Parts: sequence; structure tokens; C-alpha cells
Amino acid sequence: MIKPSLPKGFRDHLPLEAQKRQFVTSIIESTFHTYGFQRLETPLFEGLKTLTEKYGEEGDQLLFKVLRSGDFLQKADQEALVNGDSRAVARGICESGLRYDLTVPLARVVVQHQSEIQFPFKRYQIGPVFRADRPQKGRYRQFTQCDADIVGSGSWVGDAEVLKIYVEVFQALGLKVRIRLNHRKIMQGMLRHLSLEELSTDVLTALDKLDKIGHDGVRKQLDSLGIPSQAAEEFMAWVGANDLTIAHNDMMSEGQKRLKKLQSVLGESVQFDASLARGLDYYTGMVVEVVSEEFEFGSIGGGGRYDDLTQVFGGRDLPGVGISFGLDRIVDVMDHLARWPVHMNTKPLILFVHFDEKGLLKSWDYVQQLRSKGINAELYPEVAKAKKQLKYADQRGFSYVAMLGDDELASNTVLLKTLDEGSQRSLPFADLLTLLKG
Amino acid sequence: MIKPSLPKGFRDHLPLEAQKRQFVTSIIESTFHTYGFQRLETPLFEGLKTLTEKYGEEGDQLLFKVLRSGDFLQKADQEALVNGDSRAVARGICESGLRYDLTVPLARVVVQHQSEIQFPFKRYQIGPVFRADRPQKGRYRQFTQCDADIVGSGSWVGDAEVLKIYVEVFQALGLKVRIRLNHRKIMQGMLRHLSLEELSTDVLTALDKLDKIGHDGVRKQLDSLGIPSQAAEEFMAWVGANDLTIAHNDMMSEGQKRLKKLQSVLGESVQFDASLARGLDYYTGMVVEVVSEEFEFGSIGGGGRYDDLTQVFGGRDLPGVGISFGLDRIVDVMDHLARWPVHMNTKPLILFVHFDEKGLLKSWDYVQQLRSKGINAELYPEVAKAKKQLKYADQRGFSYVAMLGDDELASNTVLLKTLDEGSQRSLPFADLLTLLKG
Repeated sequence: MIKPSLPKGFRDHLPLEAQKRQFVTSIIESTFHTYGFQRLETPLFEGLKTLTEKYGEEGDQLLFKVLRSGDFLQKADQEALVNGDSRAVARGICESGLRYDLTVPLARVVVQHQSEIQFPFKRYQIGPVFRADRPQKGRYRQFTQCDADIVGSGSWVGDAEVLKIYVEVFQALGLKVRIRLNHRKIMQGMLRHLSLEELSTDVLTALDKLDKIGHDGVRKQLDSLGIPSQAAEEFMAWVGANDLTIAHNDMMSEGQKRLKKLQSVLGESVQFDASLARGLDYYTGMVVEVVSEEFEFGSIGGGGRYDDLTQVFGGRDLPGVGISFGLDRIVDVMDHLARWPVHMNTKPLILFVHFDEKGLLKSWDYVQQLRSKGINAELYPEVAKAKKQLKYADQRGFSYVAMLGDDELASNTVLLKTLDEGSQRSLPFADLLTLLKG
Repeated sequence: MIKPSLPKGFRDHLPLEAQKRQFVTSIIESTFHTYGFQRLETPLFEGLKTLTEKYGEEGDQLLFKVLRSGDFLQKADQEALVNGDSRAVARGICESGLRYDLTVPLARVVVQHQSEIQFPFKRYQIGPVFRADRPQKGRYRQFTQCDADIVGSGSWVGDAEVLKIYVEVFQALGLKVRIRLNHRKIMQGMLRHLSLEELSTDVLTALDKLDKIGHDGVRKQLDSLGIPSQAAEEFMAWVGANDLTIAHNDMMSEGQKRLKKLQSVLGESVQFDASLARGLDYYTGMVVEVVSEEFEFGSIGGGGRYDDLTQVFGGRDLPGVGISFGLDRIVDVMDHLARWPVHMNTKPLILFVHFDEKGLLKSWDYVQQLRSKGINAELYPEVAKAKKQLKYADQRGFSYVAMLGDDELASNTVLLKTLDEGSQRSLPFADLLTLLKG
């Protein structure tokens, strides 16, 4: 018998790990609630028609496709089958796939259910997404996104709200982060000023590598794109200056005006960063990215404003803004920095230990009384040696053990051991109840 | 442009619906916590090797399989491809599938991570599972299970704990349910007594239809199986008598002893039901099923005890017991009975309405002050006509609207409308804060 395993790029989260994830998620979710975002749930499956051509050619390759059930080969393009053309065959034998992010499902929902939705629509969604990427450290094939979007308003208020959520969540998690802010119009305006608009994708791709290859590295890439030396020079100087007042045209001014407004309401918590490119094509306004100040680990959150999210699905006039938290990476950073708070309730409270069937029954009775008050209490589920029961208490990390020997049974008391301190004392059960109710 | 849609059998949950699901889930989850169950998360994907041959031949047909990425045709069995043998081809071009329940993943985890787990292992898991069933009313291709299992103990305590969880959760939801209880050994013992052991699967399948086809219908099916009339007669009489004291052999006595123990600690909240069969082969002890007393809708929960969950993965000596809540069906029942509590927080609290950029900024300021106290407050995100803003407040169902006209701005007051009552009054912002903190 072979030891069972998971497909590559997928992970189990055992209780301690799951509890950490829950801790982060609950802070994010309660902040979303405070800001008036409502929960949306979409299925894990989407039609391939919905998913394809939304994430560029590379994205299409990374979609997980689900095989039709039944005799799928009948639906295959027979010529493609003979030619061994996997891509063309896939179109026939699969009709759905696993969602790749939470943004395209949002766009679909907004168009599909538009008559049931009140705009501006403030929705959040938390859940796994799937990418058939090559698994590597910090990159998984299933990972969890926590998204908040406001659809149907172009106001600065939406930008400010999602940025403030970043500030508050990372503060609550005790993580020092840099919230890097840029505006697509500032960048586009600068590229227009330098007559580099046609090369904008290439320039931004080069700029995206600034952290990795440094100023000189980016400069070299610009040269290799055939960009005139003077323009490259001016561009790099501008990036380095990081100055929100240099406006060469109206486009730049417009972007700057929005960022200045945001700074005026948010203060120093967000920082203009002229070098922030962010890949996704659909952003048209503010773009934002969050990185840890204490541990270099790439982006742990990102988002931006878009003019029209729903255009691809035939919707219109629905500008919006959204952010995403990368749960898995945030947990990795918290782990690396050992930043989990002491008060995070990782410990079970109390285990009842007993020595015969009579003690087991009394334990059941006591435990049920505690549980009925909402107190987390457990009993070792069968008669077993004290050593075995205490070992279990130790391994699980219970705070207290209540032992029920003959003396205790006769007097309705328990022998209470406080495991951290190694101390013990005898007390009536009624007093224990009061103690644990705290 | 075609209106976007979802694959058949999948659903979106818009905010009101998602909130209902959240309400039920949170009651289930907090009860799991009180009883000392710890959260486990497994990925949505499992290897096909893990999934196949676990759910019978029918189950294998209902597995959703995921296409390998890249040039998958190369991995196909070429002969099967030529012969159009979909099943054999699938084995080559897919290596993983979507999980079908939460029990097989649990068994895999217990064997794969056994050195990291303390037994008895009390784990819960809440999440979607997938079946390529024909979609119909109340049956979806993605649905959510909420499972609690205790692995590594054969004690009655585990049985009692999971049954008590059923009692408490449905009480908290305000649903009247019947918790039907039987024991595999009682049923097997009875069939042995009647020399019907070889036909047990057929007999139980017939019995499973009792609700639908009635006593006479089941009797007819037994006849058509060629069961001697006297045995069929005795069997049906025994089912009808529903008597926990008729023991024809040790096997029956053993099962009865366990159920009597459970009744002695749980009282009338669970009921012996001799007609309860429950299909799943791996149960060996107590079996349980929950149905609504108020709305006939099939099972909304079920579970049972098994001798060895992990055998198929090479584990051993790990008896266990588990239950599952069917979230989607519970929500359907609550909807049908209009049983949602009034206090379920479906309403957003307060919307700030304003008339110019100055009012918008002041709204932002007020709203941030409220949010910093954890109070859910919103502002209409852009300058718009009062009518439009009030219509939005009405549609979203806000409890209060705070209006900021010139007078209010000059005096740091708000005009507070209570939407339910239609009343309004002017008050200083500081008083509003106190009121909402209430």
C-alpha cells in the first residue's frame, strides 16, 4: 500500500495552521463588514466561456479545465484528435474550469444579476482560486484571495476606503507594511511625454523588475528596447525622483490630483511610488501594492481602479475599485516573523481525566454542564490509563486537566491541574464552573 | 453579446443568501468548537488515486476530473483514443479530481500526517464538495458539507457527542427535527436471524424507500427478491414494532446495548428507528439521520460509526464516528419555513447623505470616526441628488440615514432619519456616536 499524497502544488492545513488562517481571515472579514462590504459567494466552477481570454494568453494556459462527465470523447473535435492538437480537443471535451481569481466572477455576477443588485455594489468575497502554475516556494496551485470591490462609483471615496482597509488590517495583524500607490494616468502621461506610449507594455514589464535587477538593470533593458538614451535617462530620473508634482501634461495632472486627494484624507499611511507598474491591463486609475517592510517576500496584497469591469460581459458604465489580500502569503510572513499574538486562542481549555466507567460518566455530565454555558470542555472519550490521558492533554496543549478519582467522585469535587504551572488543587465542581466562566 | 451564465447545477449566493448561509455555518462552527473539534482544511483537489473506488461504481461516474495542463493528449492511452473509450482515456489525461465528500480526504490526512496528529483526533471541516449528478431541485453539483468526526476512539462518548451536536445546532436554528438512530449490528443481527444476510444490500435498498413507497411497497419488493413469505412477514413486523428489546442473537444485543447507553445519556432527543438503513457501506456501528419534522425534504444531516476509516489507505486500528450537516438543504428548509430570526443582522446600519463636496468630506470624516469604534457606517461615495442617495438607502435597507446639509455642517450636527419609523430629528454628532455605540 502506497502512502497517500496530494497532487503537486496543493496543501493540507492541519488544525494549528488552519487556526492561523482563520485568525487572519476573521480580521480581514470584520474590517470588510465595518466598511459596509457584503459577502458574495460564487461557485468554484465557471464556464470556460467566462474564463478564457480574460487573463491574456498565459492565463489561458494556466486555467484548470474540468472534463465533461460521461462519454466526453464524442464531443471532441475528431480532426484535432487525430492531429493530437490538445488545445483544440480541450475546447470540446471541457465546458467548465476552476476560477482563476475573484474579479472575473464578480464581473459576471454584476452583469448576470444586475437587476437584483443595488449600485454602488460593495461586495467582498473570500475563497480559493486555482492556477496551473509551476509550484514553487510561496506559490501554490490553490490559494486563497480575500477581495473587496466597489462597483458603480468612480469617486475618490472608494479608493480611500479600500486603502484604509489595507491600513487597518495590517495594523491589526501587527505587520509593518509599505502601501505603494501609483496612478495609471501619471505613468501613461509620462510615457506619452517621452513618446514611449507604443512601448508602454515593454517599459512597464522592465520597470516591474526594479526590485530584482535594480536601476541599472532596468536601464539596460530600456536600452535593449531601442529607447533613445535621453528618454530612458529622463524616465529613470523621474522614477528615482518619485515626485508627485512633476506634470508634463493634463493626463499626469489628472492622476496626480486624485493621489493628492487620497493623501489629504489618508495622510502618510500610503506612499506615492512612481516605480509601481502592476501588470493587470484592466486597471485605469489608482494602482496599489502592499509589501512587508520587515520581510522581503513580494506582494501580499494589491489592487486598483478600473473604468469598466463588466465591458467584456456586455455591461457598461460600471467603474469600480478593488483590493485583494493574499491570505497564504500573509500567513507565510506572519510565520516567518513569528508575529502570531499570544492571545490567539490556539489552546483547548480543559480535559476531564477519569479512571473507570463511573468517572467517565461523571466526566460526561460535568463536561455537558460546561458546554451548555458555551465553555469549551472535553473528556477523554474512554477509560484508559492516567498516563495515556495526561500525555494526550499535554500533546494537545490543554490549559487545565480536571481529574476525577474516587475521592473526587464521592465529594463532587475535581482535582484541577494547571498544566503551565504544574500546580494542582482540589475544588468543588461549582467553583470550577465559576472559574472557567471567568 | 450573450448574457453570461454559470454551468448547470452551480449557483451564486448574493449577499442576502450568503448572509443566511453564514448564519447557519457560524452556529454549526461554534458548536463544533464548544465540543472541542479543531478545524481542518484540505484542498479542493485530490489525486484520482485517492478518490476512485471509494464511492462505489456510481460514485466513480460522478467524480469531476480535472484535465492535465499542457499537451495532455500525449499522456492518453492511444489505443483507447482510437477506440473512443472515454473512461480509459480519462485515466491518462487526468490525474486529479474535485473532492466528492469530506470523509475520504479526512482518511487520507489521518494516514498521511499520522505522526503530526494526536489521537483521538477531533476534527471538523466545512467546505464545498462536488458531484456530477443530474441537477434537480435541492440537488446541486457543488454543495457545502459541515462535518465533525472523532478518529481513534470506539467509545460511546464519541457517539453521544456528535448526536448532542445535532440536538444543539437544530435547537439553536429553531428547527424541529427528528434524529433517527439505528445500529448496523441490530440490523445485521436481524437479517442473520432470518437467514437473509446474503441479500442484505438488496433488503436495505428496499427498506430505504419506506418513506416513498410505504410498508406494502417494501413488502412487495422483498417478495420480488424471492424472500420466503414468513421471513418477509417477520422482518416487516419487526421494523413496524420499532422495539429496542427484541434480541435474537448476540449481534443484536450488542447493538442494542450501545443504543440504550446513548439513550440513557441523551434522553428523548434521539429516537431508535428500526427502519433506518443509510446506504454507505463503511458504517459498522450506530447510524443516524436527521429530517425536518415540519417540512418533508429528505435528510438534512447524517452520519455514523465506522470500525476503520483508514484501512483503504493502509492505516489501521482507527475506529471513528462522524456526522455531516447539509448546509444547502438546511438553508432551503429555513427559507421554506421562514424561520430566519429577526435579529439576524441582515440590515446595514447607517448611511451618510450629503449635498456637495464639503458635505462629502465631512461625511468621510464622521464615517471614519464611527468605523474606528467598530461601528458599521457608510457614506454615499459621490456627490449626487438627495433622491438618488435616499433611494439607495431604502433599497439596501439601512436602519438610519444621517443627512448633512449646510445647517448641519455649520453646527456639527446631523439630521437623523429612522427609516422604519419615518421619523427624523437633529442631534450633535457626538450624541449620534453614543447612540450607535449603544
